[in-house]
Amino acid sequence: MTFNVTIIGSNSAVPAHGRHPSAQVVNVHDYLFLVDCGEGTQMRFHEHQVKWNRIKQIFISHLHGDHYFGLVGLISTYHLLQRNKPLDIYGPEGLEAIIRLQLEAGHTTLCYPLQFHVIDTTVSKVIFEDKGVEVMTIPLHHRIPCAGFLFREKFEGRKVDKEKLAALQLPLHLIPPIKHGEDITDPHTGRIIPNKELTVPHPPARSYAYCSDTAYSETVIECVKGVDLVYHDCTFDKASEARAAATFHGTTEQAARVADAAGASQLLIGHFSARFENLDTLLEEARAIFPATELATEGSVFDVGVKAPHTAYN
Amino acid sequence: MTFNVTIIGSNSAVPAHGRHPSAQVVNVHDYLFLVDCGEGTQMRFHEHQVKWNRIKQIFISHLHGDHYFGLVGLISTYHLLQRNKPLDIYGPEGLEAIIRLQLEAGHTTLCYPLQFHVIDTTVSKVIFEDKGVEVMTIPLHHRIPCAGFLFREKFEGRKVDKEKLAALQLPLHLIPPIKHGEDITDPHTGRIIPNKELTVPHPPARSYAYCSDTAYSETVIECVKGVDLVYHDCTFDKASEARAAATFHGTTEQAARVADAAGASQLLIGHFSARFENLDTLLEEARAIFPATELATEGSVFDVGVKAPHTAYN
Repeated sequence: MTFNVTIIGSNSAVPAHGRHPSAQVVNVHDYLFLVDCGEGTQMRFHEHQVKWNRIKQIFISHLHGDHYFGLVGLISTYHLLQRNKPLDIYGPEGLEAIIRLQLEAGHTTLCYPLQFHVIDTTVSKVIFEDKGVEVMTIPLHHRIPCAGFLFREKFEGRKVDKEKLAALQLPLHLIPPIKHGEDITDPHTGRIIPNKELTVPHPPARSYAYCSDTAYSETVIECVKGVDLVYHDCTFDKASEARAAATFHGTTEQAARVADAAGASQLLIGHFSARFENLDTLLEEARAIFPATELATEGSVFDVGVKAPHTAYN
Repeated sequence: MTFNVTIIGSNSAVPAHGRHPSAQVVNVHDYLFLVDCGEGTQMRFHEHQVKWNRIKQIFISHLHGDHYFGLVGLISTYHLLQRNKPLDIYGPEGLEAIIRLQLEAGHTTLCYPLQFHVIDTTVSKVIFEDKGVEVMTIPLHHRIPCAGFLFREKFEGRKVDKEKLAALQLPLHLIPPIKHGEDITDPHTGRIIPNKELTVPHPPARSYAYCSDTAYSETVIECVKGVDLVYHDCTFDKASEARAAATFHGTTEQAARVADAAGASQLLIGHFSARFENLDTLLEEARAIFPATELATEGSVFDVGVKAPHTAYN
């Protein structure tokens, strides 16, 4: 089942070198979630062929503009395109007032329900859940209240063993009751087949953690333990550690240490400072510590749970 | 002397077909003014090689998002790039509160002075003036308070007649006092030369009128009488007149009638609806009435005062 992340914007506050402010689309079982929404995100959806009309939940990490200045425009465009399904926005205190003030200034009464959910950025807590995914906050260590988001897929019951059904020549109409956990009467032999014989456990649930913006934090490591894919703030290179600390951002080395200590399978680095036109050094520095590192650059799509090789950091 | 308009965004509310929301840079004698600032304007500056650090005044016509959602991002970027010169913003009541709320949410104290000037959108009035230009509001007829802007160049004193100076073999160091209106002693003959002999009147002041968004309005015609270049709302084609009236926008025909009735030399049409992927029909319809019409598409630069041929509308 699909579980991937499309990078819409990879840069930190000042757009530069063709890179844009933060935004990502997380696809879990074909449900799309938007994570952060920097200026111009709606224009970028077109570029990257994102089916953005399918987004129903948006998660905003914090109220620095490079993470949400595109939100009011997206909300307006949904209105102009006559959206009718609800839009749920999860973000820090203050976001709703900012959006509502702008809608009021334009005398805009939205044609769809817009619901805001204030998140507590200081705790790790489930803030959204449906049958296929749960989303938890990750307390980040930044200049202003800021949370990351952990997406973990969920499965209900067990998975139908299609090979077994084929071997027993069971008709297709039996699939729904089997999915619902029922035992089945074999139409050929009259034998009652226990559900467990026709199903297998789902594969382990995969997970993706979005950690931007943040200084190096042990709390983050705890929250993302065992995650398959982790995205971590990597605004700076190793040499700029003091600058990173002063601005509550991460370096290549710190991002890699977090991924390693958390036992993640793969690391994405992003939120690059405009001072780095070329990102090769950043990638090399992170890979020196955590080889399974990739640059989260615009348009890249990363499958969650693809086990890239990785070597422990000493 | 330079007087031109660079189109940054030409589309109406929904970005589409590679077109972007409203923004224009007006260059008067090498001073740059930004007019409207739709989402993504700062990114577009790079694309069109605009020297945007030289902008000191921004004029916002009204508080529909496609005309100002890029403003807060631009203000933030100036801050991150450590601007120190003041930025003056002219716009309707309510704009300052929107911007300040977002700066406060990000705990941002700007490193440069940001000054807001509330404009009265119901009158035609000078709102800005320096030695080279004056800017007046144009009351527009839109769903919410909305003003256009008329830029008229200004000249001080008279212009030095360089050919005359060359003929008299006057040395270059005499140019500043001549510019200041002084009479000069001819170093070759000892004769006092009256300033009027060494100068000529400046050419007639050129003007540019930005009229977006607006329904057809006689008031607009009065305000832009005799303008060299007029930009007019042309969201719709002729056939969509009812839709234009309902949304307080203009059509091709209306834009052309305004330019014609005002005796303008040239018309730019813009603020195109996303329903028009191809703009040829819009251009043809406007040119049928006012031949000196151009499409105000992204990246185009129009010199103010270039007298394109135009035929009166009957």
